[in-house]
Amino acid sequence: MDKRDIQHVLEAVRAGKLSVARALEQLRHMPYEDLGFAKIDHHRGLRQGFAEVVYAKGKTPQQVVAIVRGMLRPRTTQNVLITRADAGIFRAVRRLNRHAEFHPLSGAIRIFRNREIVGKGTILVVAAGTSDIPVAEEAVVTAEIMGNRVESVYDVGVAGLHRLLDHREKIAAARVIVCVAGMEGALPSVVAGLVAVPVIAVPTSVGYGASFGGLAALLAMLNSCASNVCVVNIDNGFGGGYVASAINRL
Amino acid sequence: MDKRDIQHVLEAVRAGKLSVARALEQLRHMPYEDLGFAKIDHHRGLRQGFAEVVYAKGKTPQQVVAIVRGMLRPRTTQNVLITRADAGIFRAVRRLNRHAEFHPLSGAIRIFRNREIVGKGTILVVAAGTSDIPVAEEAVVTAEIMGNRVESVYDVGVAGLHRLLDHREKIAAARVIVCVAGMEGALPSVVAGLVAVPVIAVPTSVGYGASFGGLAALLAMLNSCASNVCVVNIDNGFGGGYVASAINRL
Amino acid sequence: MDKRDIQHVLEAVRAGKLSVARALEQLRHMPYEDLGFAKIDHHRGLRQGFAEVVYAKGKTPQQVVAIVRGMLRPRTTQNVLITRADAGIFRAVRRLNRHAEFHPLSGAIRIFRNREIVGKGTILVVAAGTSDIPVAEEAVVTAEIMGNRVESVYDVGVAGLHRLLDHREKIAAARVIVCVAGMEGALPSVVAGLVAVPVIAVPTSVGYGASFGGLAALLAMLNSCASNVCVVNIDNGFGGGYVASAINRL
Amino acid sequence: MDKRDIQHVLEAVRAGKLSVARALEQLRHMPYEDLGFAKIDHHRGLRQGFAEVVYAKGKTPQQVVAIVRGMLRPRTTQNVLITRADAGIFRAVRRLNRHAEFHPLSGAIRIFRNREIVGKGTILVVAAGTSDIPVAEEAVVTAEIMGNRVESVYDVGVAGLHRLLDHREKIAAARVIVCVAGMEGALPSVVAGLVAVPVIAVPTSVGYGASFGGLAALLAMLNSCASNVCVVNIDNGFGGGYVASAINRL
Amino acid sequence: MDKRDIQHVLEAVRAGKLSVARALEQLRHMPYEDLGFAKIDHHRGLRQGFAEVVYAKGKTPQQVVAIVRGMLRPRTTQNVLITRADAGIFRAVRRLNRHAEFHPLSGAIRIFRNREIVGKGTILVVAAGTSDIPVAEEAVVTAEIMGNRVESVYDVGVAGLHRLLDHREKIAAARVIVCVAGMEGALPSVVAGLVAVPVIAVPTSVGYGASFGGLAALLAMLNSCASNVCVVNIDNGFGGGYVASAINRL
Amino acid sequence: MDKRDIQHVLEAVRAGKLSVARALEQLRHMPYEDLGFAKIDHHRGLRQGFAEVVYAKGKTPQQVVAIVRGMLRPRTTQNVLITRADAGIFRAVRRLNRHAEFHPLSGAIRIFRNREIVGKGTILVVAAGTSDIPVAEEAVVTAEIMGNRVESVYDVGVAGLHRLLDHREKIAAARVIVCVAGMEGALPSVVAGLVAVPVIAVPTSVGYGASFGGLAALLAMLNSCASNVCVVNIDNGFGGGYVASAINRL
Amino acid sequence: MDKRDIQHVLEAVRAGKLSVARALEQLRHMPYEDLGFAKIDHHRGLRQGFAEVVYAKGKTPQQVVAIVRGMLRPRTTQNVLITRADAGIFRAVRRLNRHAEFHPLSGAIRIFRNREIVGKGTILVVAAGTSDIPVAEEAVVTAEIMGNRVESVYDVGVAGLHRLLDHREKIAAARVIVCVAGMEGALPSVVAGLVAVPVIAVPTSVGYGASFGGLAALLAMLNSCASNVCVVNIDNGFGGGYVASAINRL
Amino acid sequence: MDKRDIQHVLEAVRAGKLSVARALEQLRHMPYEDLGFAKIDHHRGLRQGFAEVVYAKGKTPQQVVAIVRGMLRPRTTQNVLITRADAGIFRAVRRLNRHAEFHPLSGAIRIFRNREIVGKGTILVVAAGTSDIPVAEEAVVTAEIMGNRVESVYDVGVAGLHRLLDHREKIAAARVIVCVAGMEGALPSVVAGLVAVPVIAVPTSVGYGASFGGLAALLAMLNSCASNVCVVNIDNGFGGGYVASAINRL
Repeated sequence: MDKRDIQHVLEAVRAGKLSVARALEQLRHMPYEDLGFAKIDHHRGLRQGFAEVVYAKGKTPQQVVAIVRGMLRPRTTQNVLITRADAGIFRAVRRLNRHAEFHPLSGAIRIFRNREIVGKGTILVVAAGTSDIPVAEEAVVTAEIMGNRVESVYDVGVAGLHRLLDHREKIAAARVIVCVAGMEGALPSVVAGLVAVPVIAVPTSVGYGASFGGLAALLAMLNSCASNVCVVNIDNGFGGGYVASAINRL
Repeated sequence: MDKRDIQHVLEAVRAGKLSVARALEQLRHMPYEDLGFAKIDHHRGLRQGFAEVVYAKGKTPQQVVAIVRGMLRPRTTQNVLITRADAGIFRAVRRLNRHAEFHPLSGAIRIFRNREIVGKGTILVVAAGTSDIPVAEEAVVTAEIMGNRVESVYDVGVAGLHRLLDHREKIAAARVIVCVAGMEGALPSVVAGLVAVPVIAVPTSVGYGASFGGLAALLAMLNSCASNVCVVNIDNGFGGGYVASAINRL
Repeated sequence: MDKRDIQHVLEAVRAGKLSVARALEQLRHMPYEDLGFAKIDHHRGLRQGFAEVVYAKGKTPQQVVAIVRGMLRPRTTQNVLITRADAGIFRAVRRLNRHAEFHPLSGAIRIFRNREIVGKGTILVVAAGTSDIPVAEEAVVTAEIMGNRVESVYDVGVAGLHRLLDHREKIAAARVIVCVAGMEGALPSVVAGLVAVPVIAVPTSVGYGASFGGLAALLAMLNSCASNVCVVNIDNGFGGGYVASAINRL
Repeated sequence: MDKRDIQHVLEAVRAGKLSVARALEQLRHMPYEDLGFAKIDHHRGLRQGFAEVVYAKGKTPQQVVAIVRGMLRPRTTQNVLITRADAGIFRAVRRLNRHAEFHPLSGAIRIFRNREIVGKGTILVVAAGTSDIPVAEEAVVTAEIMGNRVESVYDVGVAGLHRLLDHREKIAAARVIVCVAGMEGALPSVVAGLVAVPVIAVPTSVGYGASFGGLAALLAMLNSCASNVCVVNIDNGFGGGYVASAINRL
Repeated sequence: MDKRDIQHVLEAVRAGKLSVARALEQLRHMPYEDLGFAKIDHHRGLRQGFAEVVYAKGKTPQQVVAIVRGMLRPRTTQNVLITRADAGIFRAVRRLNRHAEFHPLSGAIRIFRNREIVGKGTILVVAAGTSDIPVAEEAVVTAEIMGNRVESVYDVGVAGLHRLLDHREKIAAARVIVCVAGMEGALPSVVAGLVAVPVIAVPTSVGYGASFGGLAALLAMLNSCASNVCVVNIDNGFGGGYVASAINRL
Repeated sequence: MDKRDIQHVLEAVRAGKLSVARALEQLRHMPYEDLGFAKIDHHRGLRQGFAEVVYAKGKTPQQVVAIVRGMLRPRTTQNVLITRADAGIFRAVRRLNRHAEFHPLSGAIRIFRNREIVGKGTILVVAAGTSDIPVAEEAVVTAEIMGNRVESVYDVGVAGLHRLLDHREKIAAARVIVCVAGMEGALPSVVAGLVAVPVIAVPTSVGYGASFGGLAALLAMLNSCASNVCVVNIDNGFGGGYVASAINRL
Repeated sequence: MDKRDIQHVLEAVRAGKLSVARALEQLRHMPYEDLGFAKIDHHRGLRQGFAEVVYAKGKTPQQVVAIVRGMLRPRTTQNVLITRADAGIFRAVRRLNRHAEFHPLSGAIRIFRNREIVGKGTILVVAAGTSDIPVAEEAVVTAEIMGNRVESVYDVGVAGLHRLLDHREKIAAARVIVCVAGMEGALPSVVAGLVAVPVIAVPTSVGYGASFGGLAALLAMLNSCASNVCVVNIDNGFGGGYVASAINRL
Repeated sequence: MDKRDIQHVLEAVRAGKLSVARALEQLRHMPYEDLGFAKIDHHRGLRQGFAEVVYAKGKTPQQVVAIVRGMLRPRTTQNVLITRADAGIFRAVRRLNRHAEFHPLSGAIRIFRNREIVGKGTILVVAAGTSDIPVAEEAVVTAEIMGNRVESVYDVGVAGLHRLLDHREKIAAARVIVCVAGMEGALPSVVAGLVAVPVIAVPTSVGYGASFGGLAALLAMLNSCASNVCVVNIDNGFGGGYVASAINRL
């Protein structure tokens, strides 16, 4: 499907021959730009509600820049998110676009091209310990760039309940909660028991010995006795923020 | 907190001394009825949006009946859901309440006391293979009794893409999708790539050998390259339906 | 070492030639009675503070009876505890000693020969869910027969904090706590955060799917962010009660 | 709760309007100081018997210093313990407080503000091999700063029983034993068989191949045939020393 | 190679045209009898020092009898060993050969056709607990039928060292030791530390929870800090007895 | 077997005393050249269809050069493949043979001595993500040097089906497909469902957290619901290319 | 796509307006018959070279019969294969079609409607032990009904190499080899080293203890030092036979 | 026990009051020299047949030198073996004793003080691949310094049987065999099938992906279908050589 195809679709819409809903449907499955080592999906924003995200780990700064350049080409106002980047990649992206901002804790790079809020409520990101903050921040920056109001509460592990319960109002006010914890991964169960909204649990690899790189927290969260909990991969703060955004947009 | 306490709260509300919001907040953390071996949380419906669910496995018919009797006592119209039950438990519950219905595939027992639809859109339950149907059905009956419109599509494994793609419209129409699969657990990635809404992935223990009781499907789903996927425990159709309901109610 | 040897030791003590401390030390390493398939350690009560416990699983009723008969022979007042027994073994033991009592939930058989309280404080056994009660009861019957005052609180899982917090006084009053939980195994972290006393965590195999027979709860407890937690084997209610007794006797 | 609140509590006590027990209870659940990335729990010493411990791994020297400065502020005489630190962190802490001492083997930093002995008996730390000593030392420094008399016996692996049995008297004299071992993790079973007191087993990651980072020792200890054994996480010398202290204080 | 071939070899030997050593070498790689579902290796006794052993599990009584009949056909005096059999298989084998004897504990069936002792010293089989005896007995019956003097010591777990040390003389007298233990699998390390001879460690699946079907004992034994320990499969009493025999024959 | 032996075989063939088929059979099991640390199998090309491949990891440049020198000695036209090499090894090999070419993505070094196409059809290498390309390239270079026409399609993960389906013709045209994927490893199931030819699935270690170094993808592929899928080791692009070559040569 | 659509395609072909290749391509993606609980893919034979296979485990005899009835309806001569069935299912299928034959060892039911040989060469199925025969037989019956000449060699484990080497000619003559082994899973490496053709390795769950349900054999096969080996799931004789057929048809 | 004690024992022997056997027994359990961080067991040579071995990993050069100095002090002719050392440790040991020799492949340091051969036959060390040689060499240097004649055969993996079978005579001549292999770990099964003597299998961590650090080879060896195989830890060449020595000395 090339430009003329899109033109046809749009003219048909204007002419009243094609409903907007049908046109949208058609446009949702359009092609992509092939860089050889990667294919940029320009219309993913239309189909999935957010443009493709660049996972920088294992890519050279040159590759990341090439992909981002491709993403910035269309005259859309789609925001750009790059995860698991480092200072070297940031410098390269910054040369391409001076609006790029770097979040060293989570390693995320963001280029805001619009700051519209599309999420219906507030997403709350809760983290059990200080060491879980980088993963939590990845959830925060992801949810923000996807157009959500985001709040966060950190260092509220279950072994000091009063710290958590002090934030009861924030917890009660959230429309979706992302709950980040390593070690025994108990926080999502406790938080989810306090609310009716969905809780996205993000296990982290924080811990040692029998934490087995986050396996302990992952298993705990999958076995949560609270029913309103679902889980994403270990250290996947991005995934936690993304799922929360997908929910908050409904 | 006994009846008089609730009365006081409500009279204060009626007298205008207490706002509805505050009253709701107070009532959300009320006590429970202690049966010795279990505590019935009468106000969980208020706090969590749905009454407690009885997990029947490992309980005697007598215990299940005692809990259900306790749940039916308050003059609420909360629905009752019992999961992982068998015919023996059903007969006992049926004697207690003749509206009880049994779903042999999933082992669920339901007592509808209201059929109000509270979910905003349709929940779609998709299952990869015929053997995954019992788990999928558990998701269906859960989502239904929690007040949702539910549709289902079964036997659409990824090795026969055309079967799945034939249901593209149903998939596109859903507000939340529960995606049930055993073996290699690939279905959620494919389905989630077609939509922007959240997909709750439910791995099943269907398979043999290196499926290791559903571990293969679970790991696959946690590693999904689609970002709008989150995961619940193996064979946890109830959890899948519950999380979907929590989302659909937003 | 036969009776006369013991006599000599005791006479030496009476004659003032041997201090009580030294005599105790000598008596602590005495022989055992050999049944061929098992060796009964008559003086373990002296050395370890409690007579040997019979683990009935995998033993025939005849073997259990033979061992118990041997244990009852010496003119001591040591109590007898048999774990993981069934009704058949109980009938056989009952024929041997009419004081034997059976606890069907935990499968324990007890013969009280003295009811002296040797524990300094109260041992509290807390269980997260109804299905964890059999393991919790094993801890209770073990701690009781070892001479402790025991209290218990059941069905106080972390997803309903108010149930747990209602028992704050009992929790604060305990000298040692045994904390039994399956699924995500989060209860010990929460309970241990409320107290300064040692908490013995007992993971149970309650759960399904990614609970992997209690592995999830075990790992969670080993990774507890509360520092006053230590752990025994999965479903090892006996071990939980035993360690708690060893502590409470100090 | 600020200073005046505490004043009110104390004046009420002095005036006889509030019993000491009740006052203590109230004071046990007081707030904390929020540093943004961490929350310092000033009254944890009251509630848990020991101030918060700083786990330095993954924290910058600046973060550690900020937390320690916060901990030193109140006019208490609470001791300070920092675990898993390195020379760089030590230098930073030393600049803050010249009484700070570093234990390079275990990576612990301690600031003694009181040297009162609150433990009732002696804690004995036993280590199987030379390579287990760093973990054992972490247990020693933890137990010491929590106010215990501590003794240690090293290099007494079970393949050379005579080395262990030579220390029988020390073993018999201990009120609590911390038993540290890697490889096959057999030492706790042997030691616990010699005594009636509780034995805290600490598996270490010492070993290679099928030790799987300490998993072999951990599983061995969880399956100990001695009943007076409980277990903490792999390499968790701090946990071993902490639980032992909690017990020894009873 | 048929009978005439063997005749030729033997006649060549008698005629002095072929040295015994060469003839033995030739005969060591001879064919087998093909039953379709199995191939009987008639000369394995020559090549490996013991005739093939029939592993009965998963075979019908008819199949076992067919194999044994084939093994008994040659005019050798090779003994026959069937492992993991049950009473039904025994009855079938008994009808074939009235000398067959059944060992119900281990499930072994033996047909002695010669009772020559070919082992140079005594093989000692040590078992940690009463529940390990069936595996230990499999080692005993294997070592016996392979022509060894065998002694055994049972119920000498490491948590009661005095029981083990009482048998120091038997232990010191053995030429090879088979050491059988479940749970924490610590016995081989302790026993091997007392002797210079090789110790064959046999982990058993005795235990529950985190014993994971004998994995805990297996890993412990592989990580033994005693250097003269080697290990066979879980519950493989036969393997333990076989390796011990291969050593004792040297 | 030395040169003269080969001469004899060949003369016998020329004289008509030995059929070509029989001669080939004899030559297939010939000796090798012993370098001490390695044995070069000169006739593997005859027996296995391709000369030995040098796995460079863990070998010094000197060792690799010595082996390659030995491989180049015979007057054959066998190609040489070295896998998992680095720039240092390449420089050393380049000095030995100036035709050596280096593929930095996969770390492969190739020396083409003939470019004959022996594969009957085209081998298609499909990779799910950009990060899977190094493994895919190893399959490509392996299949090429073994005499196959090879095509490749990259970045066609299952969460964007349209990218994959755009290549339907290439997929339909392949005689064998090598399918490379990390994370959830779902691509082989989808691809194999589109074709009747064999699909060799290569899991990669691409991913994090619960990918457990490629275990998630490996398990998914072993449990593929498509029946025409078989699997090689994680990251084993070489194996994928080799098996595909062995098939394509039929 | 209904009958008329197919008619159009075929008439277009007859009229020369559509090439056969193109027509085949169009027909390859046709619909299926929906039974509610399962969807029968009538044209899978066209697309994949073999009709769908019914995996009977977990299906009722009624479900299996309904599916088979659907499969037999079209006027094709596609063979029918049902795997993992039992005698009860066989009786039900037999009533439907009297040509159904049952293979009790593997649990396969077959209905031959044509016996055309489409495989180019012979598929050899090799099994290591007597207990591996059921899995091997599943490979045999699968390969046969898919139109291949199949040979088999059983009980040729690597600990008795002469048994295997006796079959060298059969091994050399095969075009594809399926190699079935449990326990240490070493057979595929040895067999693959003797040939140049592809070897499909099928691990079995035969073994005990540390075989962990076939995991040991699976891992061994994935790590084979022979490069012409690829692997299917544990006990997946069907998969082994299917992949071999897909290859042999090329 | 000091020198005079030994003198008394020896004089009693000379005077005929004490038999040599009894004296030896008494001397076997003598004390050790305590360095604080380690205890040197001077009489282990007497008790275990070889002096203690120093495992250098994780020890400083100073610690190793202190231990070796202690070991060299007694007027014995015990050889000294240090394993897992590096060049730095070697330099330090060399300064202490100029006879120290370093084996860089295995990291072993040896000080020969006697070269007496005490082993009865030849120990053969067989290694599957070139990468397994470091582990094999550790077995060789261990067996040599313990007084054995040692031979070795390398690069004889099972995928090229003819390489292995060429060494049949060496294999047949060995009294004990140590068999070292990584990847699929199949070599011990094949070698053990050729001989009647015990085979000590040493799995190595050679491999990648699903070798899981040697787990694949370890499990394969534990499940060997050859009965005369026993196993030591992954990469434990020292253990393999030690057990072989213990056997060869019998």
